[in-house]
Amino acid sequence: MENVKVIIWGIGAMGSGMAKMLLEKKGVDIVGVCSRRSHVGENLFDVLEMDAAGRQPIIVTNDIDTLVKQKSADVVLVATDSFTRDTFDKIKKVAENGINVISIAEEMAFPKAQEPELAEKMDQIAKENGITILGTGINPGFVLDLLILALTGTCETVDYIKASRVNDLSPFGTAVMKGQGVGLTEDAFMSGVESGEVVGHVGFPESISMVAEGLGWKISKIEQTREPIISTVARETKYVSVDPGNVAGCRHCATGEVDGEIKIDMEHPQQIHPSLEGQDTGDYIWVRGVPNIDMQIKPEIPGGIGTIAMAVNMIPHVINSRPGLKTMMDMPVPRAIMGDMRDMIER
Amino acid sequence: MENVKVIIWGIGAMGSGMAKMLLEKKGVDIVGVCSRRSHVGENLFDVLEMDAAGRQPIIVTNDIDTLVKQKSADVVLVATDSFTRDTFDKIKKVAENGINVISIAEEMAFPKAQEPELAEKMDQIAKENGITILGTGINPGFVLDLLILALTGTCETVDYIKASRVNDLSPFGTAVMKGQGVGLTEDAFMSGVESGEVVGHVGFPESISMVAEGLGWKISKIEQTREPIISTVARETKYVSVDPGNVAGCRHCATGEVDGEIKIDMEHPQQIHPSLEGQDTGDYIWVRGVPNIDMQIKPEIPGGIGTIAMAVNMIPHVINSRPGLKTMMDMPVPRAIMGDMRDMIER
Repeated sequence: MENVKVIIWGIGAMGSGMAKMLLEKKGVDIVGVCSRRSHVGENLFDVLEMDAAGRQPIIVTNDIDTLVKQKSADVVLVATDSFTRDTFDKIKKVAENGINVISIAEEMAFPKAQEPELAEKMDQIAKENGITILGTGINPGFVLDLLILALTGTCETVDYIKASRVNDLSPFGTAVMKGQGVGLTEDAFMSGVESGEVVGHVGFPESISMVAEGLGWKISKIEQTREPIISTVARETKYVSVDPGNVAGCRHCATGEVDGEIKIDMEHPQQIHPSLEGQDTGDYIWVRGVPNIDMQIKPEIPGGIGTIAMAVNMIPHVINSRPGLKTMMDMPVPRAIMGDMRDMIER
Repeated sequence: MENVKVIIWGIGAMGSGMAKMLLEKKGVDIVGVCSRRSHVGENLFDVLEMDAAGRQPIIVTNDIDTLVKQKSADVVLVATDSFTRDTFDKIKKVAENGINVISIAEEMAFPKAQEPELAEKMDQIAKENGITILGTGINPGFVLDLLILALTGTCETVDYIKASRVNDLSPFGTAVMKGQGVGLTEDAFMSGVESGEVVGHVGFPESISMVAEGLGWKISKIEQTREPIISTVARETKYVSVDPGNVAGCRHCATGEVDGEIKIDMEHPQQIHPSLEGQDTGDYIWVRGVPNIDMQIKPEIPGGIGTIAMAVNMIPHVINSRPGLKTMMDMPVPRAIMGDMRDMIER
């Protein structure tokens, strides 16, 4: 059997992380890398500062059309956007060339939550072309949705779910700091929320909708709040510094109501250096039902590595899947691939 | 669409728990219950001490042949055995009548670990008859295998896995006490291990093999140890009493080696009243790799409810599945069913 063939679209932190991970795996080859501008014309091994170990150069291109020409790969990992609307045309192009798609755009984890028409279209295109489209990532895609659902699999009934992902933003760059309002005064933060510049987490409507649909709950309302995490101490990273009294991050919360009652309650406070105020990071899930389940993962599963790993580890499942737009709850559980990826492909 | 039709084979603690759970769900009917001896001829609602709420009586029968006559149900839940060898003929009979099977026999969670020939036969029978056979349960089936695999889905690489399930046997009856050696002297426990009367946990080879195969590790050796948990205090339940110095339970451990190195390390100490010596119960998973993951669920997911729920919650997935002998890692994640079960069936 030939090696699994993968194209990576987008060579930012996520795309290059996927490339690095794939180059360490057996039974899989990267057959193309597409970038809009950065690194075009460069050899991927140089971009990643990796030893090619005798392998042919992989030249980064900005010509996606040539790259995805009829069935040139088994799957394209699309790592370019956060929103379904922005990534739709890219996914369409890949799908229409008969190639499976894995997207890490947050909204693609459950696109019908906010873009039901585009989701319907993608499902149709996927089926017409006999391929699978999947959105995944650490969150949405795992911690606040798939993992919750998996735990409820051990429950006779579920009444209420609370989940929290407390993480540390310190490693991230300027774009993330802006999106979370880190370093702002409280007033500037509130204006930023108003104007949409402070977005907080992208993915709550997706996670809540996936959990609800998975359980068979009809969600009547999803509400979100974004509050500043005011620091009482000075905090600093390479990219930002926060004076005492200013904003160290965004406490983004969301609830999902079923028949006027809050059944799903999620929070995702993201800040730099939470440990400076004694805040432990972690992923927490509390299921109230029969039985109750109290889970914690401390520290939290890191977001960057987790998203990179999820996208790569889902490749065999996506290749094996029936055609259509799928979500993580349609697929077998993701799992690390420590052997030959070809052994996971069903003939 | 008609309601999903379920037959339950075995009306012990697990089978009757499944019946009770199913009778509370929408879009599903119990169309038959089979028991070898107990409750034969009785109305299921009386056996369960439940209000029939206007529903037709469901009479427990010992005539499985009539019950499973050609495609009389969508699935049979077989809740009668622990070992593949003992349950094989029952599964075969159901499968040959064109009905899907969910088994909670521990070894059926990954039957090819210890019964590769029977597993091969079941796969063949399932495919010939266009049905799915699945083994599930809380453990094996979830805590020490599927949940571990799901967590590794967020990992780029995995080097080593340790997992522990610490539970409380106090609610269980005489058979479980004997199987775990509870109440014995240390010497009697050791002889019981020797003679096979003290079995400890059934499922380690299955869990270790599933995790290894899921990751792509080739296991070269599985080793198990069974040690007495000596109580320093008096412990007592309705069914057994333990004098200080005697055995409160069995610390059953198992390891899986890959290329001469222990890569999977599991322990499952089971005892009555662990809290009397300050022992918290819980489910713990430690993944060492990129990244490390430290998970805990405290207290542990209860074994009885968990197994009942897993069997029932997997019904739609088994109906939707491609034919064959499947394991939990082939299927979408289990999830609680709070809506109409028919909504989860793919047309």
